[in-house]
Amino acid sequence: MAGSGYGTIFRITTWGESHGKALGVVIDGCPAGLSLEEDDIQRYLDRRKPGASNITTRRKEDDAVEILSGVFRGRTTGTPISLMVRNTSQISGDYSEIASYYRPGHADYTYDEKYGFRDYRGGGRSSGRETVGRVAAGAVACKLLEQLGVQVWAYTRSIGPVEADMHRFDREVSLSTPTAMPEREADAAAVAYLEKAKKETDSVGGCMECMVKGLPAGIGDPVFEKLDANLAKAVMSIGAVKAVEIGDGYRVASRKGSENNDAFHMEGGSVAKSTNHAGGILGGISDGDTVMVRAYVKPTPSIFRGQRTVNQSGEEIEIHIKGRHDPIIVPRAVVVLECMTALTVLDAMLVNMSARLERIADFYGTSHMGKGSRGGRNFTQE
Amino acid sequence: MAGSGYGTIFRITTWGESHGKALGVVIDGCPAGLSLEEDDIQRYLDRRKPGASNITTRRKEDDAVEILSGVFRGRTTGTPISLMVRNTSQISGDYSEIASYYRPGHADYTYDEKYGFRDYRGGGRSSGRETVGRVAAGAVACKLLEQLGVQVWAYTRSIGPVEADMHRFDREVSLSTPTAMPEREADAAAVAYLEKAKKETDSVGGCMECMVKGLPAGIGDPVFEKLDANLAKAVMSIGAVKAVEIGDGYRVASRKGSENNDAFHMEGGSVAKSTNHAGGILGGISDGDTVMVRAYVKPTPSIFRGQRTVNQSGEEIEIHIKGRHDPIIVPRAVVVLECMTALTVLDAMLVNMSARLERIADFYGTSHMGKGSRGGRNFTQE
Amino acid sequence: MAGSGYGTIFRITTWGESHGKALGVVIDGCPAGLSLEEDDIQRYLDRRKPGASNITTRRKEDDAVEILSGVFRGRTTGTPISLMVRNTSQISGDYSEIASYYRPGHADYTYDEKYGFRDYRGGGRSSGRETVGRVAAGAVACKLLEQLGVQVWAYTRSIGPVEADMHRFDREVSLSTPTAMPEREADAAAVAYLEKAKKETDSVGGCMECMVKGLPAGIGDPVFEKLDANLAKAVMSIGAVKAVEIGDGYRVASRKGSENNDAFHMEGGSVAKSTNHAGGILGGISDGDTVMVRAYVKPTPSIFRGQRTVNQSGEEIEIHIKGRHDPIIVPRAVVVLECMTALTVLDAMLVNMSARLERIADFYGTSHMGKGSRGGRNFTQE
Amino acid sequence: MAGSGYGTIFRITTWGESHGKALGVVIDGCPAGLSLEEDDIQRYLDRRKPGASNITTRRKEDDAVEILSGVFRGRTTGTPISLMVRNTSQISGDYSEIASYYRPGHADYTYDEKYGFRDYRGGGRSSGRETVGRVAAGAVACKLLEQLGVQVWAYTRSIGPVEADMHRFDREVSLSTPTAMPEREADAAAVAYLEKAKKETDSVGGCMECMVKGLPAGIGDPVFEKLDANLAKAVMSIGAVKAVEIGDGYRVASRKGSENNDAFHMEGGSVAKSTNHAGGILGGISDGDTVMVRAYVKPTPSIFRGQRTVNQSGEEIEIHIKGRHDPIIVPRAVVVLECMTALTVLDAMLVNMSARLERIADFYGTSHMGKGSRGGRNFTQE
Repeated sequence: MAGSGYGTIFRITTWGESHGKALGVVIDGCPAGLSLEEDDIQRYLDRRKPGASNITTRRKEDDAVEILSGVFRGRTTGTPISLMVRNTSQISGDYSEIASYYRPGHADYTYDEKYGFRDYRGGGRSSGRETVGRVAAGAVACKLLEQLGVQVWAYTRSIGPVEADMHRFDREVSLSTPTAMPEREADAAAVAYLEKAKKETDSVGGCMECMVKGLPAGIGDPVFEKLDANLAKAVMSIGAVKAVEIGDGYRVASRKGSENNDAFHMEGGSVAKSTNHAGGILGGISDGDTVMVRAYVKPTPSIFRGQRTVNQSGEEIEIHIKGRHDPIIVPRAVVVLECMTALTVLDAMLVNMSARLERIADFYGTSHMGKGSRGGRNFTQE
Repeated sequence: MAGSGYGTIFRITTWGESHGKALGVVIDGCPAGLSLEEDDIQRYLDRRKPGASNITTRRKEDDAVEILSGVFRGRTTGTPISLMVRNTSQISGDYSEIASYYRPGHADYTYDEKYGFRDYRGGGRSSGRETVGRVAAGAVACKLLEQLGVQVWAYTRSIGPVEADMHRFDREVSLSTPTAMPEREADAAAVAYLEKAKKETDSVGGCMECMVKGLPAGIGDPVFEKLDANLAKAVMSIGAVKAVEIGDGYRVASRKGSENNDAFHMEGGSVAKSTNHAGGILGGISDGDTVMVRAYVKPTPSIFRGQRTVNQSGEEIEIHIKGRHDPIIVPRAVVVLECMTALTVLDAMLVNMSARLERIADFYGTSHMGKGSRGGRNFTQE
Repeated sequence: MAGSGYGTIFRITTWGESHGKALGVVIDGCPAGLSLEEDDIQRYLDRRKPGASNITTRRKEDDAVEILSGVFRGRTTGTPISLMVRNTSQISGDYSEIASYYRPGHADYTYDEKYGFRDYRGGGRSSGRETVGRVAAGAVACKLLEQLGVQVWAYTRSIGPVEADMHRFDREVSLSTPTAMPEREADAAAVAYLEKAKKETDSVGGCMECMVKGLPAGIGDPVFEKLDANLAKAVMSIGAVKAVEIGDGYRVASRKGSENNDAFHMEGGSVAKSTNHAGGILGGISDGDTVMVRAYVKPTPSIFRGQRTVNQSGEEIEIHIKGRHDPIIVPRAVVVLECMTALTVLDAMLVNMSARLERIADFYGTSHMGKGSRGGRNFTQE
Repeated sequence: MAGSGYGTIFRITTWGESHGKALGVVIDGCPAGLSLEEDDIQRYLDRRKPGASNITTRRKEDDAVEILSGVFRGRTTGTPISLMVRNTSQISGDYSEIASYYRPGHADYTYDEKYGFRDYRGGGRSSGRETVGRVAAGAVACKLLEQLGVQVWAYTRSIGPVEADMHRFDREVSLSTPTAMPEREADAAAVAYLEKAKKETDSVGGCMECMVKGLPAGIGDPVFEKLDANLAKAVMSIGAVKAVEIGDGYRVASRKGSENNDAFHMEGGSVAKSTNHAGGILGGISDGDTVMVRAYVKPTPSIFRGQRTVNQSGEEIEIHIKGRHDPIIVPRAVVVLECMTALTVLDAMLVNMSARLERIADFYGTSHMGKGSRGGRNFTQE
């Protein structure tokens, strides 16, 4: 099954394994005319790079992106954009041991059941490196959204028990802290918490959040293609995510209607909401307010202590995973959340262009008919 | 945009408005040979009917389903199955007032922004009645899954602060309680809580849960078509759902890896997990364990007290919603969760059939080649 | 497999069997704001009705269409439009004999091989009545295209050896002749030819043609979603069509480049072509000229003389088909060609709206940035 | 719009321009377990290489394919297979002149109208080099089909007035002649014809044909996803194809039913047809006979004599195209026809696996129920 494609109009197909020759993505359906160069994409890829701090793996990943097609004289042509990152530092030897057994919390067993065998080097396609293609494509989506007045910002909301204070939220801070926390105090506390967990040969989970600002009202479709439904799929498709929320999320289940409804009022001539419990989406369609998405991420399953499992021969064994693994997934996944959100929102905006006949007629210049004829002859062969 | 279609192989398209002539669904891609009659579907539709109790609306909905195509001599033929339910009790007069303003927590405003106008009678397409088509199609999916050894069971997990005790879980009980709770004690407490809220002209939220039992390992696809990603979309597409969880969901964010990993062991010759924090899915692919999905539902937005809002002329007004509305959405949405889960799981099973070459070769009888020729001549015109 | 759906943005799903309860179609993705009533659709359905003449079957088909959803106060709402035609005159007894054997030129054998059994009444889903849904949906597409300045006209080009003289082409004539020929002389000759064939208990083939006028240049996509590729699929999907041509079609294979190239010149300030061998499409994209599509249709396979075949028990037998069958398929298929062409062209126009960034930015009002902010708050829970 | 993707289960996305850095394809949904190496693909790519003869361009195209992902230890893993061919010989200088005007018969004008500008180097995405990705993917499809007992063979049927004598048909010959004709006499005559046309600074058209042997009956879906409908799209999507036929194609339009019907009879215990006018497809579904597809190709539009056209400033000019161009497209397009046919047939076979419930139950081992339980626990958190 074609499981590596995403989107309807702006459609991406990612490819590549952790320890294969390269990873990449093809963007099919990017509108023509976007100014684009490798640096635009590289900045996003660098955000998923392991940092200098102790809390990310020291594995060196020098992910240099190459634009192979779809850009001519610095602008997108409307034809497929192929982006590739060569793998440079893979050492297959590190991983050979895991070929024979099933690591708890990993996809080793399920891939074997599905496909009969698996590329076990570094997790193959189930590795976090799979997200290289998502981020490369998402960078293009983000740049395009900016041209349409829409910003997409993701950051770490909490790590273990440490939660960011959103009154101190600063986008720039979230781009510079090792945890991707949007304020420095929580960042410092989270780093301390992570170092302790690491010393205890353990790992921790966390929560990341994404806001979409500037999205017009009316984006998203009723029933199955609701904007929140597609965001839920986009976000749950990121490895290790186990819960997705829109707006206030699970908290609404213990509320009363009188507490949870967002009242409408007028603000500068526009309809606005007094609160945003709904997270910017009503009936699956954007309401003009900030869209809020939240993802809960499990602790890194690779931990450096003995674990019980079974091998391919059906024997129960104890394993000790080696190699380099982050004690937390969240900080490097934040940019993936941002990219998946951007891809979803952009596609919904493109799809939305055909919602109203009057706007289509405007687009094709026929809203005031009676102009000169288009097209021609009755005969084919003369 | 074609937002009312769902699924790849087993694909459904729903249609119909709350107060239109009828609602229905077309199932395209149902395998041939399933024994099917209207009663199989009616039983599911009856579960979303308002009950006799005080906690559901007294609006009479006599949803009798009619099979219009795709079944011949009691069995599905492989061609589209068209199912229709006529609307019988709509009284448009009840709703005419809401034409001009935007109810808080409803999709009135967003539909107007998207489409320029809306069918305001009973919420039109954004009404909960939209789910009639989903449930009719889901009933067929559930029957088909049973033939494949898979059960899908949804029920109410909590209402406001009242949570079901899962040690007393009983599927049959969940089908008979007014709250769809799977045990009677919580049901009684929840009913009391709901009656109090109703008296206070308020509404409450809740949580519903679904388990998939008997699903083979290996179902679901890597990357974007992960089983959990598709479940998240399916569930978030149900109106009023604001959060979706797989397995332990948001709780994993505050755990350590050593707590959250599910150890593998052998059980009766098969690989099994000692715990099921993962909810039956690893790397987006089923692991043979029970799949667990949870959905958090907001309180009914229609409440019987004054609310602030704006009208289409941009005036701030106070409104008093009339009509008949449940004080909670969950009990009648449980069957919708069950159906959306079933549709997702079934489609993933059908898609999975082409995962391995050896199984395809078996299917087409070519795994031991060298048999007699199939097909024929070199020439077209002789 | 979901084989009864067609289109990306404007997507239809047809359903129904020749002798089932009803036939119909769901249109998902029709833009909001189109004025639509049952008469708009009925006019198209009436064109596929058997006529008064001798050359079409006397089976009475009173196909009255009912709009079940998606239209409110006379305009489309943007939500699915469900259209249904009840079957009124089916008499299953007529067809019971064919249950056991395979009619030459029909799909009896292939349906049995695919599905294990079939609805044999009147051909079931493989009957020409399957096109009721296509025509109902196509009528809506045609009306929408007219609003965008595009006309789609199909007619009979030839019947057996009788070809229409295109210098006498008259759209109105093609709507009134029993053969759907666009000029009366060929119509008369064709009728005579058909009556002779009928007397000889035989049937004849023919060719039908469709022109699309007023289509702007730039519609269609490179590579696989070429406008001509999609037209080819649309047209070949009509039962009994065995060849599809664009522009001069198969004639180009025996031409020189110097004969076949269409020179460009200027005409009233616009780029135009001096000839239209290409049929209005270059590189899969419309060039602003009339799009020309042609379909070759086989003779009706049901003929009233003895034929050799086999039955389900594998015995060779001679059969004599009874019932009422047209000696030619073309005249009643012309409106199906028109509808399939319209559906394809309309969908391509909707898809094309996202081809250029500058036009998307115009659509969303961001081409001259720096206006007031959209959207809002940073915080979800306050 | 995502126009560069093709297929449902076995889905490909091609990318790349004539003079960009590289061209390639991602195959998403290839079943796991196929033995695959670069040579398997290279053999197909070599067939679209310009040959040593006078009738193909002398432009050197050294298309060496690289497998970048999806293959581990010589077998496909079920994850996306990324294939790339670096462009080595492009000299952009050759083409700079064409930037400003519209070549007759080319897509220059339509790309400008669609996208606002175009990559004019060698035709960019509209070049015949676009088919590199199709052929690379098609090679994999062909290898997979062979494992399933299906052969796909394309060859040149006619060039200008020279037609191959099918009684001398030899697959091996078709792989070695410069014209891809399947017999040497017609090949010699066609070469002579082409050399004459070339001397006259002209180009010629032709016809190519493809047969699918060994395809089981039952492949393809009713209505829109008919096997012949999808073949028509696949084939018409190849640049320069203007007509597509199945079986006897346009010839059926002038036949009687008694001539055109293929009688069924028994042959070695199986149902067979006495003739194959239908080209192996009835009602859109394969009938077990050889599938026959034919494509008519226009003469190369680039000819070496003066032509009238217009430029981007709207001036009428005369142009003289330079560079290297084949006087005929057909011989190098034959392998593209073979590949597009293979991709279509393979996808239809994979999709067909879910047609019957009994076979799905067999696949999942539930046709004789009552075996040991699968799956597990009722509780998530313990």
